[in-house]
This record gives sequence, structure tokens and C-alpha cells, in this order.
Amino acid sequence: MTALDNLSKALSRLPGVGPKSAARIAFYLVRSSDDYNRVLADGIATIKQKVKPCSICGSYTENDPCPICQDASRDRSVLCIVEQPQDVITIQNSGAYNGLFHVLGGAINPLNAVGPENLSFGQLLKRIDEGSFKEIIIATNPTEEGDTTALYIRHLLKDKPQISLTRLASGLPIGGDLEFADRSTLVRSLRGRIRI
Amino acid sequence: MTALDNLSKALSRLPGVGPKSAARIAFYLVRSSDDYNRVLADGIATIKQKVKPCSICGSYTENDPCPICQDASRDRSVLCIVEQPQDVITIQNSGAYNGLFHVLGGAINPLNAVGPENLSFGQLLKRIDEGSFKEIIIATNPTEEGDTTALYIRHLLKDKPQISLTRLASGLPIGGDLEFADRSTLVRSLRGRIRI
Repeated sequence: MTALDNLSKALSRLPGVGPKSAARIAFYLVRSSDDYNRVLADGIATIKQKVKPCSICGSYTENDPCPICQDASRDRSVLCIVEQPQDVITIQNSGAYNGLFHVLGGAINPLNAVGPENLSFGQLLKRIDEGSFKEIIIATNPTEEGDTTALYIRHLLKDKPQISLTRLASGLPIGGDLEFADRSTLVRSLRGRIRI
Repeated sequence: MTALDNLSKALSRLPGVGPKSAARIAFYLVRSSDDYNRVLADGIATIKQKVKPCSICGSYTENDPCPICQDASRDRSVLCIVEQPQDVITIQNSGAYNGLFHVLGGAINPLNAVGPENLSFGQLLKRIDEGSFKEIIIATNPTEEGDTTALYIRHLLKDKPQISLTRLASGLPIGGDLEFADRSTLVRSLRGRIRI
């Protein structure tokens, strides 16, 4: 069973795919159609040639600069800073944001040896100096690393009081149940309570 | 973002991979190594050429007959009937079974138009007639379809009283908590209770 074992092993390195799901996917691929397997294999083999980081914002794109950076209809006075390229898609899909993006490439995480020098802060400062941003929204994850990164950005921009610096609200997820909220979420949602 | 969208769409057809995990995997593949993407793409592109159903038992193999059917050290008086090729691996990995296998290719499921004629019962009867099995273990899933299939096998073999017909025990999973057991599992585990 070497071919199946090798394929399972390769699949189990994908994010969110454990050894059991990897085996299940490998067996599925034995009985799926030739066409589907070819499309999937081609997609995986060529994705790195087709998709590159945008030289301006760092999100993934087939044309450089990316469609968002090129879109003249977007609000160029607002910049949303995210950790990863997929966060751009998530915020785009919300339909609630029409400004520009900046992808840091991660969050500051000393335990994993990710310092500010490993993230695109140089390019960020260059964009801020050359652009005319009125508001910068920090949309790093609501984790210890994301919070550290947000604090670092506040420190970076402390001599630019003309730019309003904001952070995405943290709190109870919509449709969630108070009973199942973890303590840190509840603390954040109390501290960030809003007047109605 | 067409290349990423297409890859996400293809990935989301894999079992256990929803649209969100598919997007996450697609983004991961953009920043993973060229070598890894090539190994994974090659594995997917070639798996169907390399792996075929065993002409005897129906499990997946690179050499026909499969290593289990060829293994002279296995107990040829016991046959374990399973639904899918991956079930062979699961039971093999338990280390608690040393007989032969027979893969049905699914379970009887009238709602999905899977009848006995779609499963390998012909080959099963042929093997039973030509072999010298003393025990047949039905290891179909503990679901309505698996139970129906088990009943059908009992009916098929009703004129072979020399073969002892057994079914895998159902009950509480080891390490599980009684409080979280669902009703049907509890009913099965009561009905199948054993003297200690």
C-alpha cells in the first residue's frame, strides 16, 4: 500500500487534515473520476506559479498590483491591516469594508521566533508615508500574538496623531450563547460594551 | 483570484473538507514548498493508475492479489466482510484480526439506489463456496444501512449452517462517558451486555 500511504502522508500535512482524514481523502481519490484528480493535481502543481503576493499590499494575486490595490472606486483613506492573505478575502466577503488592505504576513510571536523584522512593517510605514490614510483599522486576530502586534503598530504610529487608529471589536459571536462563551471573550465583551 | 478560487472549489469536493477549509488549504499551498506541492500533485495524479481493487477481496492494492490475500500465514478459515477498502486498513491496524477480508463496496441503501446487485455479493458467495471458512464476521457499519446489509448476508448464508456467522459488537466506545452516549448506542450496549 505504499502509494496510498505516501499520498496519505502528504495529505496529512495540509492544515486541518489529520492522519485519519488524510487516509479517507486518499481512498476517496482512488475512486473519484480521472478528470477530477487531474484538475486537482494541476491546480496544486501550478498554484505557486499563478498566484504571487501583491507588491503593494501583500495579498495573493494573479496580476500585480492586485485588483483591490488597482480599484479606483475604493476608499484610499482607510487601511485595514491583517495578518494573512486569506484575511483579506474574509473581510472582503463581509461586504462591510471598502478601503485598502495591508498584509503583515503573520503576527509577532517571540516563541516561534517571529519578530517585527519578519513582518512587512517597512512596507507598511512606506505606504503610510506616501499615502493619505485618515484611519488605520488593525484587524489582527484576537489572540495574544494579534494583540501584541496591534500594540506594536500603535507604537510605530505614535508620531502620526492625524491618523485615527482602530481595532476590530471583540466580543460574543452573533448567534452564540452566553453560556458557552469562554472567559476571555466575556471579559473582552464586557470591557468593550457599547451604549444602546 | 481565479486560480485560487478554482483550487478551493476542487479541494472543497474532498470528503471532510468544507468551503472554509478548502480556502485555507489553497492559501497554504501558495506558501508551501515547491517540492511538497509537486509530491502532493503527483500523488493525486497517479494514485488511480497505481492502486486497483484486489480481484479476490476488493480492497485497494498495488499488486493483484493484495498482500493480505497472498499472505500464507493468515487464517483462511475466517472471513471479515466490510463495506469499504479503508475498513480493511482500520481492522488491520487494530492488530486483533488475522483472517481474510471481503470488501462489499458499500452497504444496501435503497434511498441512494444501492441494492444487493451493486455490491460484490456474487464474488462473496463464490469465495465462500470455493473456500473453507468456518466463521464469517460481518463488520459493516453500525448504521441502518450496515444492519440491513448484515441481515441480507445472514439471509444469503441461511443454507450454510456449518459457517458460524458473527457481527462486530456495538456499544459504548472505550474512554467514552455514559452521560454523552446517544440513546441508540445505549440500547445496543444494554441488549448486547456481557456477563463478567
